[in-house]
Amino acid sequence: MSAAVAHMMFRKLTLVHKAFCNGTIAIEKRFASGINSLIYSEYGDPNNVIQLQTDNKIPTLDENCLRIEMLASPVNPADINTIQGIYPVKPPLPAVGGFEGVGKVIEMGKRTSNIKIGDLVIPAINSLGTWRSQVVCPAEHVSVIPEGTPLLFAATLRVNTCTSYRMLADFQDLEAGDTVIQNAANSGAGQMAIQIAAARGLKTINVVRDRPNIDELKDHMYSLGANIVVTDSELRMSSPEKLLPGLPRPKLGLNAVGGKSAISLMKYLQHGGTMVTYGGMSKQPVTVPTGMLIFNNIKVVGYWMTRWHDRNPNSVEAERMFDELCQWAKEGRLQIPRHRLVNILDYKTAIEGAMADFTTEKQILVFDQ
Amino acid sequence: MSAAVAHMMFRKLTLVHKAFCNGTIAIEKRFASGINSLIYSEYGDPNNVIQLQTDNKIPTLDENCLRIEMLASPVNPADINTIQGIYPVKPPLPAVGGFEGVGKVIEMGKRTSNIKIGDLVIPAINSLGTWRSQVVCPAEHVSVIPEGTPLLFAATLRVNTCTSYRMLADFQDLEAGDTVIQNAANSGAGQMAIQIAAARGLKTINVVRDRPNIDELKDHMYSLGANIVVTDSELRMSSPEKLLPGLPRPKLGLNAVGGKSAISLMKYLQHGGTMVTYGGMSKQPVTVPTGMLIFNNIKVVGYWMTRWHDRNPNSVEAERMFDELCQWAKEGRLQIPRHRLVNILDYKTAIEGAMADFTTEKQILVFDQ
Repeated sequence: MSAAVAHMMFRKLTLVHKAFCNGTIAIEKRFASGINSLIYSEYGDPNNVIQLQTDNKIPTLDENCLRIEMLASPVNPADINTIQGIYPVKPPLPAVGGFEGVGKVIEMGKRTSNIKIGDLVIPAINSLGTWRSQVVCPAEHVSVIPEGTPLLFAATLRVNTCTSYRMLADFQDLEAGDTVIQNAANSGAGQMAIQIAAARGLKTINVVRDRPNIDELKDHMYSLGANIVVTDSELRMSSPEKLLPGLPRPKLGLNAVGGKSAISLMKYLQHGGTMVTYGGMSKQPVTVPTGMLIFNNIKVVGYWMTRWHDRNPNSVEAERMFDELCQWAKEGRLQIPRHRLVNILDYKTAIEGAMADFTTEKQILVFDQ
Repeated sequence: MSAAVAHMMFRKLTLVHKAFCNGTIAIEKRFASGINSLIYSEYGDPNNVIQLQTDNKIPTLDENCLRIEMLASPVNPADINTIQGIYPVKPPLPAVGGFEGVGKVIEMGKRTSNIKIGDLVIPAINSLGTWRSQVVCPAEHVSVIPEGTPLLFAATLRVNTCTSYRMLADFQDLEAGDTVIQNAANSGAGQMAIQIAAARGLKTINVVRDRPNIDELKDHMYSLGANIVVTDSELRMSSPEKLLPGLPRPKLGLNAVGGKSAISLMKYLQHGGTMVTYGGMSKQPVTVPTGMLIFNNIKVVGYWMTRWHDRNPNSVEAERMFDELCQWAKEGRLQIPRHRLVNILDYKTAIEGAMADFTTEKQILVFDQ
């Protein structure tokens, strides 16, 4: 999709969003062509097992429930792995795909409170199934997002953005001027980590895989606020002294790759530093030289955003996190990672795009009909 | 050395110790044949670079210093590795070997306080050099050990015993009934971990290498209070459900081996468990499957007793630890790990013994002349 087409789609999405806020489109009219869902009835290759289902019957609304018009929902690696059956989350089948997204409240049951028509909501539970044009669910299964939050920022808030936020908050006591090193730095979470770190005054050393268009990628990452961007091989051939003149060695490493890349990160950490693993793109385990554990006091831990959300649904801490992130987004300090909007009817291209190698574009499903 | 000879040596050691307490042996008489030290002037194979040096001049005593008659000092893996030059501690050369041991105060400078002739002391710093019959050092370089503490227990307190104590204290909040899994369970630290755990009401699962005399070793470890003793291959072929009926999965793993053995330990840990690495006998790194970090929330950290001692010399916490351990020893709840007493003049056999494979005997130097 060209930038111009994407821009048109986004403009249309925004117009629909505004029309809903004003209540100018009736529910029946909106869903005249049915409710579209991406479902799977068995685990397997997403290219094969995902099916588009169109339901012409609009579900009734229980009094504790909300009717939500979904506006945008990304295709994340966790979605793909869940459908492949290799993720620890195993929804009962058949299931609707998608762990996150943003929607608008368009109808409310009688016994719902603290919410109003037009509110922007994101899932508060992991199993909502967001790849569908309409969701009907209990009110406590969603969280309201502050007014004025950019739509696509809200759509990608719950998984990648929150992952980056919490990893920068929960493992080391980081202060302005401290440094963080991360691999897979051009992933959705990686791009967010750069920006959240910059918003907090932290410095980032960002590692990406060697690739043909490396300069263009580096430029993009510097524009997000990265302090240093290097390829895996540049990192391995350098040293903390050469690469980080004037900067302290990192207290924190964020690893989504494993294998050799993870070892390189650890070598740059300062004494007592922590490496947090949240992905394993190389399919290689994390190998830690014994001396790094004993003598350098390096801590190797993991992070799973799903677990945090499970333990903190609609908590004060979750609300504080959403508020801070949305405020930064409204101020323009957090840009949405590179993305491509794909109509749910073209879901096959979104799935393919999400599974492509070297992708830096997040595929985001939209439900405009 | 036969058990009978070892017993005789130990009896003689105890008699000498009592004679010192009564002040019945003059310093000059005691060191009539000189002060013996094991020194090395270059890093290398301990069998080659360690030399016995006999000094006939008794050093003078500064007013802030103590004269200490060393009574017993073990040969630990860290001593060997330091002499080999592969340990992060690099004493200026020439150096006296030995990081720990026990001695008696036999003379005090005028400006020393809180100490008296006959006090049992152990090093409070890492670089004391304990493989010598006499040490003269500032009073703050040693810690006084409670009266009545068994001599050989005091000699091996600072390294292995404290390592086991702190690893069981500082990484997980363990309560009576909780379980701990460890490999190299027949090492000095391993045997101490079994007994300290038992004193605290913790259950231990103990992993040792397959070997010919396995039943005899298992019997010994059960006699120390081990709950389960298995070989590496028995552990790999079993499962938490089979091996631990009625026991919770371990919250804590203690790893001194690395490689496959460390992976096995991690597989037995409960969700959120911690594996603490304090050695790497297999020379293999610690390899952590990504899913264990992310989904099982396993934490992989290291422990180095030297660092703790460096940061807590003569601290309240150190005193509390020594007091608790010595009290347990006096009550007979902590036995000294299997050992062999070797006169410093026969140091070559002690070094050889300490470097032998499959050893369960700690070599302890004594300085009786």
